Amino acid sequence: MRADHHLAPPAAAPRPHPGGQEHATAVAHPNIALIKYWGKRDERLVLPRVDSLSMTLDIFPTTTRVRLTPEAGHDTLTLGGRPAQGETLRRVSAFLDLVRQQAGRPEHAAVDSHNTVPTGAGLASSASGFAALAVAAAAAYGLRLDATAHSRLARRGSGSASRSIFAGFAQWHAGPPTADEDEADLASYAEPVPAAGLDPALVIAVVNAGPKAVSSREAMRRTLDTSPLYEPWARSSADDLREMRAALRRADLEAVGEIAERNALGMHATMLAARPAVRYLAPATLTVLDGVLQLRKDGVRAYATMDAGPNVKVLCPRADAERVARTLRAAVPDGSVLVARPGPAARLLPGER
Amino acid sequence: MRADHHLAPPAAAPRPHPGGQEHATAVAHPNIALIKYWGKRDERLVLPRVDSLSMTLDIFPTTTRVRLTPEAGHDTLTLGGRPAQGETLRRVSAFLDLVRQQAGRPEHAAVDSHNTVPTGAGLASSASGFAALAVAAAAAYGLRLDATAHSRLARRGSGSASRSIFAGFAQWHAGPPTADEDEADLASYAEPVPAAGLDPALVIAVVNAGPKAVSSREAMRRTLDTSPLYEPWARSSADDLREMRAALRRADLEAVGEIAERNALGMHATMLAARPAVRYLAPATLTVLDGVLQLRKDGVRAYATMDAGPNVKVLCPRADAERVARTLRAAVPDGSVLVARPGPAARLLPGER
Repeated sequence: MRADHHLAPPAAAPRPHPGGQEHATAVAHPNIALIKYWGKRDERLVLPRVDSLSMTLDIFPTTTRVRLTPEAGHDTLTLGGRPAQGETLRRVSAFLDLVRQQAGRPEHAAVDSHNTVPTGAGLASSASGFAALAVAAAAAYGLRLDATAHSRLARRGSGSASRSIFAGFAQWHAGPPTADEDEADLASYAEPVPAAGLDPALVIAVVNAGPKAVSSREAMRRTLDTSPLYEPWARSSADDLREMRAALRRADLEAVGEIAERNALGMHATMLAARPAVRYLAPATLTVLDGVLQLRKDGVRAYATMDAGPNVKVLCPRADAERVARTLRAAVPDGSVLVARPGPAARLLPGER
Repeated sequence: MRADHHLAPPAAAPRPHPGGQEHATAVAHPNIALIKYWGKRDERLVLPRVDSLSMTLDIFPTTTRVRLTPEAGHDTLTLGGRPAQGETLRRVSAFLDLVRQQAGRPEHAAVDSHNTVPTGAGLASSASGFAALAVAAAAAYGLRLDATAHSRLARRGSGSASRSIFAGFAQWHAGPPTADEDEADLASYAEPVPAAGLDPALVIAVVNAGPKAVSSREAMRRTLDTSPLYEPWARSSADDLREMRAALRRADLEAVGEIAERNALGMHATMLAARPAVRYLAPATLTVLDGVLQLRKDGVRAYATMDAGPNVKVLCPRADAERVARTLRAAVPDGSVLVARPGPAARLLPGER
């Protein structure tokens, strides 16, 4: 499954490609992990402790244009048309440095990104954002990367972005532990996971909650460093992933949902046992979880997953999405509820390549 | 610390004592575990997987009278004046069998028990109930038991009852694993833990919630059998207990509270990872926990613990109890809030011995 290593240029060996487009625009979608990414083993290379597996969504794409600006002394960034500075610009610029290194080209770039996630929806835009940026920047700088290499590159911007390169379901490989950084970098990327015949929806309950008390980056670090429950969860998550792949292969939505729900609850359990505890579960989160339990009692195959925040994403058969959405709307009348389905791969926009 | 083994009669060696009182009345109080009892290694002998440590409360005593009825063909039981039957009577009668075996006396008994925990308060009455029953029945059947032996006996009725024998803080020893049942029984009892100078209150937020979806007995079993996080929690709980004893010794309420809170969160984390998950935390539980976090931000030393239910018990300095109670009342306006302090040991009522 990792036979495509050889397609990718080693990160440390720039491959000049003077025929770049100089500008390119790409689109990518968010994804929701069914087997969670929780814990980094290398912060700089963004190497995870565990494999994860997600569903790319068909809503809220990010569209990003990268235009080389040879005359400029630095990179620029606009988000939704507004110039961005500080940490956000620094992070994008550091990402472009990786692309420049691979391409062997020094030019700065102007990045314009439009993210369609509604403000406060609590859906991280870093996955779709860095997936779109990876695809657009690689093209603009003249790199010809396959999807695996795009995934590996996107990973450096934000771990979960590695999965948004692919349509539908994708597994991000942690890769084997190795002291060789190039080898570790090469081995960690996402790839599509077949799930023919599965026709799911993901109903997202956006819960009205205050700002996060703890960033997910800090929460990951604290859990890994202090929670006595982290390592056993990581081991059980490897089992969950194997079972999840098998469940997807046989299009068994019930098993997919059960595994996803237990994997997510386990992740939150590791955080509750961190010191000090990290708790993203809000009262309204549990109200939604109670609604999901009631749906199952009523015979609806609905299963919950939660990330580093109070929102709940409920996997169910596409045919039941409206019923599930009605139940969740009733559970959190002051929140909002969205319905997503499996979405497309990240891609360059036509006319841009 | 366990040098008092020799004071207790071996459970398997009945010690006839014909000079019994024939009737006796005892009173005992509930306790709240700060280091949790979660998981049995022997269901019949009620031997726990981990040591636990609790505070006996000064509220809601149970008063139980045991009167030998040599003429009767079976035991009888009244609870609050009303005759009890079925599983409740069976459990009390099985407990009296143990007392009869130890005393070498065959008579049946009439048990009258008055429990003052308000209905729906969600505070288990089995701890105070079996502690009072153990003390009263032992006296009625003419057994002269010390507190250790009372604790060991009470344990057989309900594990946490072993701790309600003692005033203030008490540790229930799991005892070393051994295939010898008599040895295992002898080694598992509670004993007082010194905490001179600590002046705490326990503010109890009784949350309005429906009946438990899963009994605590079933939840313990399922967690032990299926949660990948149980064993690591049990190991970390042993560390918590050592640190808790040290914190009590130096009357360090902040450390006592922090350790109690993390131990309880860890216990609930093990349940979330059970298959299927066991979740006692209700939306209102988290609302109370948010209130506790806010109290701490405001400089109040308040720490939460939760048992197999949605209620929250908040440890704080006695002087802050009213402030904490006000905050919790505001957090759960349709619940109720009680204030408890360290309570007395189980004892025979005067004139009854």
